[in-house]
Amino acid sequence: MTFNATVLTLYPEMFPGSLGVSLAGRALVEGKWAMNPVHIRDFTRDKHRTVDDTPAGGGAGMVLKVDVLAAAIDHARAINPDAPIIAMTPRGKPISQARVRELANGPGVTILCGRFEGFDERIFEGRQVEEMSVGDAVLSGGEPAAILLLDACIRLLPGVMGAASSGTEESFEDGLLEYPQYTRPTEWEGRTIPEVLRSGDHAKIAAWRKHQAEEDTRSRRPDLWERHRGVRGQFASGAQRKKEDLGS
Amino acid sequence: MTFNATVLTLYPEMFPGSLGVSLAGRALVEGKWAMNPVHIRDFTRDKHRTVDDTPAGGGAGMVLKVDVLAAAIDHARAINPDAPIIAMTPRGKPISQARVRELANGPGVTILCGRFEGFDERIFEGRQVEEMSVGDAVLSGGEPAAILLLDACIRLLPGVMGAASSGTEESFEDGLLEYPQYTRPTEWEGRTIPEVLRSGDHAKIAAWRKHQAEEDTRSRRPDLWERHRGVRGQFASGAQRKKEDLGS
Repeated sequence: MTFNATVLTLYPEMFPGSLGVSLAGRALVEGKWAMNPVHIRDFTRDKHRTVDDTPAGGGAGMVLKVDVLAAAIDHARAINPDAPIIAMTPRGKPISQARVRELANGPGVTILCGRFEGFDERIFEGRQVEEMSVGDAVLSGGEPAAILLLDACIRLLPGVMGAASSGTEESFEDGLLEYPQYTRPTEWEGRTIPEVLRSGDHAKIAAWRKHQAEEDTRSRRPDLWERHRGVRGQFASGAQRKKEDLGS
Repeated sequence: MTFNATVLTLYPEMFPGSLGVSLAGRALVEGKWAMNPVHIRDFTRDKHRTVDDTPAGGGAGMVLKVDVLAAAIDHARAINPDAPIIAMTPRGKPISQARVRELANGPGVTILCGRFEGFDERIFEGRQVEEMSVGDAVLSGGEPAAILLLDACIRLLPGVMGAASSGTEESFEDGLLEYPQYTRPTEWEGRTIPEVLRSGDHAKIAAWRKHQAEEDTRSRRPDLWERHRGVRGQFASGAQRKKEDLGS
């Protein structure tokens, strides 16, 4: 079944955008995923096609109307009933590779993009909408975040990446940052590739990379490091068993 | 001076992408920012125009060559000497609204987008490249992250947003998530707008919103909450003085 990306937006012309090029673009042409931008304004029912209104209680900006959003979501749910509905909002749960992988394994995703001051809060409970955030910065709207989420999902779809990079050895997959990479030339402006990587000793190289990944995670991202240590402590025996099953 | 966005990429055709539409698109046409996609491949010096090579020490995928990257960066630095060079990488420092605001106040930004297994690590120290991450997920390349960073910067440029939404009252600006928003209708599918927001009592509304912002930050993002409390404790008297100066 084709991974269906339905995006509810006031700017459908932003899609596929950069997703129409390169890896994702080729996969789109090959039918490995489908892009379905839906204009939120098509679900207004008044003469002026009003999508927003002033915030209750006052304040600057405009808020997207819950009744219009609900009608757009109901339309998307009729097309792809099993796809999660995700709103890109700065109040949401930070994106994670684990959630991306779950989404990529499913029937697709319906993404709700806000503009202005955001959504009427009632939509989230009223239509079981998951809120997701992509970093602690304020965007002009949810669209750039939607493109980012879709990019992360699409590269994991079957047949999209070559066998050479299966995506299993990368950052976050084991809760650590990836180790640093080097390639030729061996010396560049007086900077050399670490000796161990040129040793040909595979066990030593693996140990060096593991150490680097751990050290870099600990110093750069103490939040990830704490989680990694917590999970390892909790599931150490299970992970060990799994590794043994896989014969690694 | 125009904010200059130079993007070093293997897919210059991805730009401006969604940044050519709506708020950012209008600002681009009006000359409030300039988009300068630069093809990394133009800085190769061999017959085959090689941008990448196999990882030192072995492993899947390909690594972008440090000499080619350095030549591309040197070109960008000649165009816009004072713009910071930022590589979008999962190993980077998480994006923050504070950093976005600094960038928007400057002459622009040069963004380095990776593909494959990433960059030869030597480029970061060798050319003073800052690493920035936009969420703990793996992308097909740095391009969607670059679009997101630019979107966040562009909306803050002078004259890009209307006076109605000055961007000062939003999520992260004070280290808290924004309070929930509501608009008409007052009742929707049995869900009502909180009573206090309909009271007309501005002091009560402000207090409710502050409480909600704090509660939501505490429950949804304990990491932000800890930082907010730390900063508040440290600078409480200074922040108080500033508020009084502003007469608020």
